[in-house]
Amino acid sequence: MADDEVILLDFWASMFGMRVRVALAEKGVVYEYKEQDLRKDHKSQLLLEMNPVHHKIPVLIHNGRPVCESSNIVQYIDEVWNDKAPLLPSDLYQRAQARFWVDYIDKKLYEVGRKSWAADGEEKEAGKKELIENLKVLEGELGDKCFYGGDTFGYVDIALVTFYSWFHTYETFGNFSFEKECPNLMAWIRRCLKKESVSKSLPDSQKILDFAVFMKETYFTKSG
Amino acid sequence: MADDEVILLDFWASMFGMRVRVALAEKGVVYEYKEQDLRKDHKSQLLLEMNPVHHKIPVLIHNGRPVCESSNIVQYIDEVWNDKAPLLPSDLYQRAQARFWVDYIDKKLYEVGRKSWAADGEEKEAGKKELIENLKVLEGELGDKCFYGGDTFGYVDIALVTFYSWFHTYETFGNFSFEKECPNLMAWIRRCLKKESVSKSLPDSQKILDFAVFMKETYFTKSG
Repeated sequence: MADDEVILLDFWASMFGMRVRVALAEKGVVYEYKEQDLRKDHKSQLLLEMNPVHHKIPVLIHNGRPVCESSNIVQYIDEVWNDKAPLLPSDLYQRAQARFWVDYIDKKLYEVGRKSWAADGEEKEAGKKELIENLKVLEGELGDKCFYGGDTFGYVDIALVTFYSWFHTYETFGNFSFEKECPNLMAWIRRCLKKESVSKSLPDSQKILDFAVFMKETYFTKSG
Repeated sequence: MADDEVILLDFWASMFGMRVRVALAEKGVVYEYKEQDLRKDHKSQLLLEMNPVHHKIPVLIHNGRPVCESSNIVQYIDEVWNDKAPLLPSDLYQRAQARFWVDYIDKKLYEVGRKSWAADGEEKEAGKKELIENLKVLEGELGDKCFYGGDTFGYVDIALVTFYSWFHTYETFGNFSFEKECPNLMAWIRRCLKKESVSKSLPDSQKILDFAVFMKETYFTKSG
């Protein structure tokens, strides 16, 4: 795989893009990072061509061929670079469980998390409440384990830990503390952050908060 | 795998449950079918225990252990019963493409399809319009191929063909014709229906329509 050409179309603040960065770092894959402008009518020709269906990042371009959707990309990376750092469990039942929980994360965190800072009033409160509830379900699934797959960092850990970069934003807009709400989940996050693949792939929390404040003022706040 | 105990918790009209029925039929797996009552406060203790997170069908119980979410179950079936009828492609890039399209089907058909019969007015029209648009995207992806994976019936075919059982309902409520809108997709459906695994797993279209009419009258139509 030494001659492979790997390009990642991404946006720095995307927890979905971060998943791919963590997975590539786990596997030690060298790649070219191409930051994308996601504003309407500003998307690059390359992004439109490589993800003609959704026009979204992340896109992994492997030897000229695009793979889209972050959880799909991470599975692809695990299958292609299978010589080190296995991400999905080899046991078939555990694999199905891992896919189930990544699907849960995909469906149950992003939208409610977004509401918790981008919305206002009741919608914002409902988003915050559901975000905390759903993270508690994930904390329950972790239980006493070191990582979601057991002793080693893997697919579910990658899918979830990148949301941590937004925790400071959720807490600031929602006026609550994850440390208080989900202490075991926060201990797991600290274990994940000891891995360079994670700590070097996640942007600074304050930078994300500044971005969210800018986005809310620019796009989400109703005038008047 | 002869001694395996396989139980499927399902509901006859669910296109997601049908996916599992088709996959099990393709693999020749003998299983016990347990029809579930999905009405609020009527769900079985078994369903609540086997899918404690979502309380939804389908659930495949394999030797006492549950697997949830239809696309996950079909992948699990393909990995466990791997001696015949491979469903996912072996080529890693094609596997990623197959997962991408199943994800597209999961995200882009059910909700809009439901709106096209359960909603009214503008919402209903928008659902119908988007349903047809999204099926045209899927027709475009099929192109000249016999099945989505090429010459053999597989993962994407299973995920999509089960929606056919609802086509008559969508057409009747929406007053349009899929034959006119997506003729190549309909030709593909006829190819799929030649397979006993499909034809025997999909319920009668008229029975689905009767069910939809009942559901709309009972639950979705605003009184007054």
